[in-house]
Amino acid sequence: MAGWGSETHMPHSPTVEKLEKQFEELRSQLEDSGKLRERIRAVAMEIESATRLMHSSLLLIHHSRSISDILEKVKQQIGVLRELYNKLAEIIRECPDQYYRYHADWKSETQTVVSLLSFIHWLETGTLLVHTDAEEKLGLNPTEFGLDIEDYLIGICFMSNELPRYVVNQVTAGDYECPRKVLKFLTDLNAAFRMLNLRNDFLRKKFDGMKYDLRRVEEVYYDVKIRGLAANRESAGKEGDP
Amino acid sequence: MAGWGSETHMPHSPTVEKLEKQFEELRSQLEDSGKLRERIRAVAMEIESATRLMHSSLLLIHHSRSISDILEKVKQQIGVLRELYNKLAEIIRECPDQYYRYHADWKSETQTVVSLLSFIHWLETGTLLVHTDAEEKLGLNPTEFGLDIEDYLIGICFMSNELPRYVVNQVTAGDYECPRKVLKFLTDLNAAFRMLNLRNDFLRKKFDGMKYDLRRVEEVYYDVKIRGLAANRESAGKEGDP
Amino acid sequence: MAGWGSETHMPHSPTVEKLEKQFEELRSQLEDSGKLRERIRAVAMEIESATRLMHSSLLLIHHSRSISDILEKVKQQIGVLRELYNKLAEIIRECPDQYYRYHADWKSETQTVVSLLSFIHWLETGTLLVHTDAEEKLGLNPTEFGLDIEDYLIGICFMSNELPRYVVNQVTAGDYECPRKVLKFLTDLNAAFRMLNLRNDFLRKKFDGMKYDLRRVEEVYYDVKIRGLAANRESAGKEGDP
Amino acid sequence: MAGWGSETHMPHSPTVEKLEKQFEELRSQLEDSGKLRERIRAVAMEIESATRLMHSSLLLIHHSRSISDILEKVKQQIGVLRELYNKLAEIIRECPDQYYRYHADWKSETQTVVSLLSFIHWLETGTLLVHTDAEEKLGLNPTEFGLDIEDYLIGICFMSNELPRYVVNQVTAGDYECPRKVLKFLTDLNAAFRMLNLRNDFLRKKFDGMKYDLRRVEEVYYDVKIRGLAANRESAGKEGDP
Repeated sequence: MAGWGSETHMPHSPTVEKLEKQFEELRSQLEDSGKLRERIRAVAMEIESATRLMHSSLLLIHHSRSISDILEKVKQQIGVLRELYNKLAEIIRECPDQYYRYHADWKSETQTVVSLLSFIHWLETGTLLVHTDAEEKLGLNPTEFGLDIEDYLIGICFMSNELPRYVVNQVTAGDYECPRKVLKFLTDLNAAFRMLNLRNDFLRKKFDGMKYDLRRVEEVYYDVKIRGLAANRESAGKEGDP
Repeated sequence: MAGWGSETHMPHSPTVEKLEKQFEELRSQLEDSGKLRERIRAVAMEIESATRLMHSSLLLIHHSRSISDILEKVKQQIGVLRELYNKLAEIIRECPDQYYRYHADWKSETQTVVSLLSFIHWLETGTLLVHTDAEEKLGLNPTEFGLDIEDYLIGICFMSNELPRYVVNQVTAGDYECPRKVLKFLTDLNAAFRMLNLRNDFLRKKFDGMKYDLRRVEEVYYDVKIRGLAANRESAGKEGDP
Repeated sequence: MAGWGSETHMPHSPTVEKLEKQFEELRSQLEDSGKLRERIRAVAMEIESATRLMHSSLLLIHHSRSISDILEKVKQQIGVLRELYNKLAEIIRECPDQYYRYHADWKSETQTVVSLLSFIHWLETGTLLVHTDAEEKLGLNPTEFGLDIEDYLIGICFMSNELPRYVVNQVTAGDYECPRKVLKFLTDLNAAFRMLNLRNDFLRKKFDGMKYDLRRVEEVYYDVKIRGLAANRESAGKEGDP
Repeated sequence: MAGWGSETHMPHSPTVEKLEKQFEELRSQLEDSGKLRERIRAVAMEIESATRLMHSSLLLIHHSRSISDILEKVKQQIGVLRELYNKLAEIIRECPDQYYRYHADWKSETQTVVSLLSFIHWLETGTLLVHTDAEEKLGLNPTEFGLDIEDYLIGICFMSNELPRYVVNQVTAGDYECPRKVLKFLTDLNAAFRMLNLRNDFLRKKFDGMKYDLRRVEEVYYDVKIRGLAANRESAGKEGDP
């Protein structure tokens, strides 16, 4: 067993000095990545704060029919989000190739952002916000700092979770057309998701939850139909605008 | 609520087609990253298999004094590991900048690799295998596919966990010098770790475990001293054979 | 205590060599069955993938009345399934008598297959797909690689789980005949299941779930009757279109 | 949707009759396999009973030095076990190729049997009972009703769990040689197990437990050595019989 010979009882033998030197370097590197992470977390918390405001405003949609006013207010925060994602991208630019090293630090917030943007988009257009449009809305440059596909899909699942409640409240407010529209949207979305081979366990679980959203909306639609509430509107809808 | 106009009852409206097109693309991308991950996992499992063989051979060190023969056999696997890490690096070369996207798929195996390499290195030299030397032993090119610092540090903690048992067995076999040497090494290592600001929870926990290793070795050293076993041997040991 | 005499301190005594030889053999046998299992899992995952596509297409049945088109598309996958089960049977042919050793590796997928085939069959005929017909559809040779009875029964339970949702959606779409038909089918199926002495815990639990399906369909039938929706339509339905 | 036409409201339509006929057959088949399982369970419980007696007698080994008397008594039960396994094999002969269908019904008992047989064998010879010898002791014909490899290995792990306690009690009784012998045996056994790629989670967990047995025995050996208790014996042992 060679090597022991160089060991002495002095507190700062060459061996110990080498050890200390390496740990000094590691300390510095860990410190650097730790500080970077703190900066990222600070921005992520600002994103979280902005989404909380958006969510709070957007919730009014459940008990109001003046959607456009509400959306106008909510959409003001999108500019804030753009700036914050721009900040994030700048930080990541400092450590090329390490997007996924720090990804866990903003992914949950980003999933919420996607859920809000896609809900707004659906309220405005009745269609799904696609991945590239979500990136564009956030001012993301996909070659540099893109929107992770799984974050996008999980955000869409979260959006779906909002829809049953929206349908119930719309019907309560007298909009008997809403269940059919939402049902159509969710049915197509479910069929689309089923095309995917979901190996990500979290995403798979969220998708399982989406199936309950669909069923809940079907039940509401059923209630409306069986009571003959949708009847007139439907025939009207079939003529032109649904 | 604009946008509903484009929706029709036809099963394949333009809206649905756009949706399907996007999910077809997402499906293909998820499939690609899924296949990449499977290839990575296959190599990681080969690494695990090689480390199992190494560990099996290395365990004999606990009950044998012919260390050099054992190490010779164990070190034959290092060449195998180099090849496997080279394979991993090649796979990651296909997806630049995504080292950390797939990092979770090999990190546990790599921590074990570090623990084995550093144990071997300590047996041979009585010193700590530093991070850059670990990379070199594995033929890693740090600018392309390096050894993550936290994986390195966790591997060192695992190595530390082997030492109390080693000390116990060496004392049993009559080597009363061993506790002092290991105690010195672990004391220095502990002091070095304390320089680090450990924000990684897993690493912090593993470091907490290292403190118990130190304590156990202290107890063995105490047993040896209190029975006067170390005294004579120690002076003898200083003369020649470590 | 005899026998200790043959033990020596040499690392490779005859005793150790015998031990190593046996474990080398066991290692090889475990490796073989491990590899076989991996091949089986690979086919099982292909089966899972095919059923995912089938399910995705079949879901459209809930919101469409052109059943025949949908079924045509869904049934195309049955050929794929036949091929995959043929592959499975070939693998199992290599290890005669060990169908049940590896059964756990494909049973869950097979239960899903049965649920889909029996739902399709029910949509086409209004009757239950019997066990032997399920085997025939999958090209199984029961003397070699049959369909386990419990897998068949669990698959039927899964199919039953789909029916309440189907009834709700059919009523929503104006088919007030559907609840009565489904109720009749589920009542007979429940009575048939009750003939069985279910010792398999999982199957017993799934059958408990089937009772809720029956109850839910009863409620929908009640809604339809109490609103007088079934009456007129029913007589109309008996004349032509089921 | 064809097929509904043949349905009537009569409780025993042809459809229902076909359904009942199939379930009558399934009931009969489930009943048959249920009865078979009951017969298997009855034998398995007799095996469990015999092993309980054996274990109870074998426990005396911990506080007695007249090992041969104890072993004589314990080994009388092996004949009983042979008969019971012969019964099991006869039952399985009735349902060729279905060993693994019912395997779960005797595997736990068989693992205990292996642990006892291998402990007895170790007490008598100081070596490991190999797989084929275990089969022979139980009168098993491997081509017909063999000993599953994983059951064998798990049984060996259970045997290992008995050893630390045995060592402690032997040392208490003044046998300071015992720790070294057991340590040698467990070290070799551990190294052998590490050659295996354990994909079976239960087995892997049991093997993890075996590592603690090894460590515990090492600690006992350490205590004996550090107090100079093993000294004389060892020097004596070095001369001839260990």
